[in-house]
Amino acid sequence: MTAATYNGSRTFGTIETRPAAPRPGEVQIAVSYTGLCGTDLHIFHGDMDARVSMPAIIGHEMSGVIADLGEGVTGWAVGQPVTVMPTRSCGSCPACSRGYGNICHKLDFIGIDSDGSMQSSWNVPAEVVVALPEDLALDEAALIEPTAVAVHDVRRARLVAGEFVVVIGGGPVGQLIAAVALKRGARVVLVELDPSRRALAKESGINAIDPREQNLLDLVMRETDGAGADVAFEVSGAAAGVNSAVEVLTTRGRLVMVAIHPQPKEIDLHRFFWRELEMFGARLYQREDFEEAVRLVATGSMPARRLISRIVTLHDVEQGFLALESGGAMKVLVDCRAVAGVTS
Amino acid sequence: MTAATYNGSRTFGTIETRPAAPRPGEVQIAVSYTGLCGTDLHIFHGDMDARVSMPAIIGHEMSGVIADLGEGVTGWAVGQPVTVMPTRSCGSCPACSRGYGNICHKLDFIGIDSDGSMQSSWNVPAEVVVALPEDLALDEAALIEPTAVAVHDVRRARLVAGEFVVVIGGGPVGQLIAAVALKRGARVVLVELDPSRRALAKESGINAIDPREQNLLDLVMRETDGAGADVAFEVSGAAAGVNSAVEVLTTRGRLVMVAIHPQPKEIDLHRFFWRELEMFGARLYQREDFEEAVRLVATGSMPARRLISRIVTLHDVEQGFLALESGGAMKVLVDCRAVAGVTS
Repeated sequence: MTAATYNGSRTFGTIETRPAAPRPGEVQIAVSYTGLCGTDLHIFHGDMDARVSMPAIIGHEMSGVIADLGEGVTGWAVGQPVTVMPTRSCGSCPACSRGYGNICHKLDFIGIDSDGSMQSSWNVPAEVVVALPEDLALDEAALIEPTAVAVHDVRRARLVAGEFVVVIGGGPVGQLIAAVALKRGARVVLVELDPSRRALAKESGINAIDPREQNLLDLVMRETDGAGADVAFEVSGAAAGVNSAVEVLTTRGRLVMVAIHPQPKEIDLHRFFWRELEMFGARLYQREDFEEAVRLVATGSMPARRLISRIVTLHDVEQGFLALESGGAMKVLVDCRAVAGVTS
Repeated sequence: MTAATYNGSRTFGTIETRPAAPRPGEVQIAVSYTGLCGTDLHIFHGDMDARVSMPAIIGHEMSGVIADLGEGVTGWAVGQPVTVMPTRSCGSCPACSRGYGNICHKLDFIGIDSDGSMQSSWNVPAEVVVALPEDLALDEAALIEPTAVAVHDVRRARLVAGEFVVVIGGGPVGQLIAAVALKRGARVVLVELDPSRRALAKESGINAIDPREQNLLDLVMRETDGAGADVAFEVSGAAAGVNSAVEVLTTRGRLVMVAIHPQPKEIDLHRFFWRELEMFGARLYQREDFEEAVRLVATGSMPARRLISRIVTLHDVEQGFLALESGGAMKVLVDCRAVAGVTS
């Protein structure tokens, strides 16, 4: 089998080994595709070297087919298409004891804290495996994990059909949030500076605007009879994005904080008081979000295929990251399938 | 009758006039007491000269007795003790149409936007009058309005008995929030720098700490088995208060933004993401909060009398504000009762 390994700042290599047999309780997956996400890009940049053990096999947005079952694993069959919900929670910390395994204080995020899916053969504990419909294309299925993020974000907003939603930032998660919100019956505007990302959103039926060309606040006020937006998703990570989100919200409007802001940001707390605004942090997903994401992608409700800009091989992972960091790609997948003729 | 008037930066005077008869739909109240609040202090300092019309009769925390009824007013009787919920909402703006009259976009805040209670005889629309129990002391009743603020703040937090609460700032509203939370069965710690305010809180059974002497985070972690606080109320208006509130919260902990922060403040948005924290702006109160405040004060559940530091006459309002701004007083009341022997 082949695995791509992160070997330190901006370098990936591959290793060839015999696949390990699944241990008791494990499922062996022949990985089909692994998507590269923003966190993976941080790893590529060396920002998370203290957390990953090099050489590191990363990757957590994936699809594949069951290749073997470890002792004691029931309910699964070889040949079945699957994905993985890449989080393992401890079950006993203050977050887990309240039912929030997604924010477990000792979370094992598979693909960062333990080996990920950027390899042709991957053994994982059976409890993280999620079944896929037989007829779902496996490249699209690699978009289920970011879709689960979007589903969780929308759930945090307690979105109701007919509400007006502003999504700030049109990367993959922003586009998926907009798509989930549309599917829920919301009216949506996506704010994005990059014209190709706006074009992609428009192909998905999302109203995408350039805030330098069109005044966002004016648009929102016009569309809501002067009330303001019910919900804003801050997915840009920029200070200006935070300000816009606060500014456009109506009375008791809800701001969902999706982006990672490593540095504290200034925020208009007076507006929170004056309009009784609400803000909700949102991180990862829970099992119900993941299963909803499978349904949404499987029914063609998400622009999954449209978001795939490029597919690279396990030997070309560096190229994939370079495409990502240049801004020239939305979602890059790594084709992890064992090459025909090569002993797996 | 006598009225105290704000005549411009830091000056108050009095005027003597014949009381106007109540117009149709109005109730005439012989005012007993009017409390001075932080907003009134801002007016005294000249910060709100653009909003008030001088000479201005301010005051909105009050108690009194019905003296006369205008044409068409039913359900009220002369001699009945009352207070006033000093907000009039438009009923049709985006906030009102969602049932949030407290954040009406065209709110008439009586005592700022129209004549207040710092006068011995006051005519108000009947719909803002709130009945008081006969046996409630009228000085304590002047604390109902700030208690309603506290009740609303606690309701915004969706507080549940047994939860751990941190209140940052021990002015009158902070003390009342702590008292309401205790009454709801929460465990409460109040953070306050001023020793006399801490002493006052302790007399009310509130655990009050000096964060320079005792590490707040350590205390919260010890008291919650390392989980963190369920709810934090930011009532200090200080940047350090915001930081402390965010720092002490547990997973999905709720931060209620009570204080007015005129300038944007830096806030740790990463923590909001990482712990899925929630923040709720809170402003004024709704009718149900006000009626609950009457019950709480009437049943002796609030430290109403304890918070009254001083009572001044309508001729000594300036002295009252000076006591407030020096930090040497918690709640100052103005005795607005017509002096015996003087024609009212």
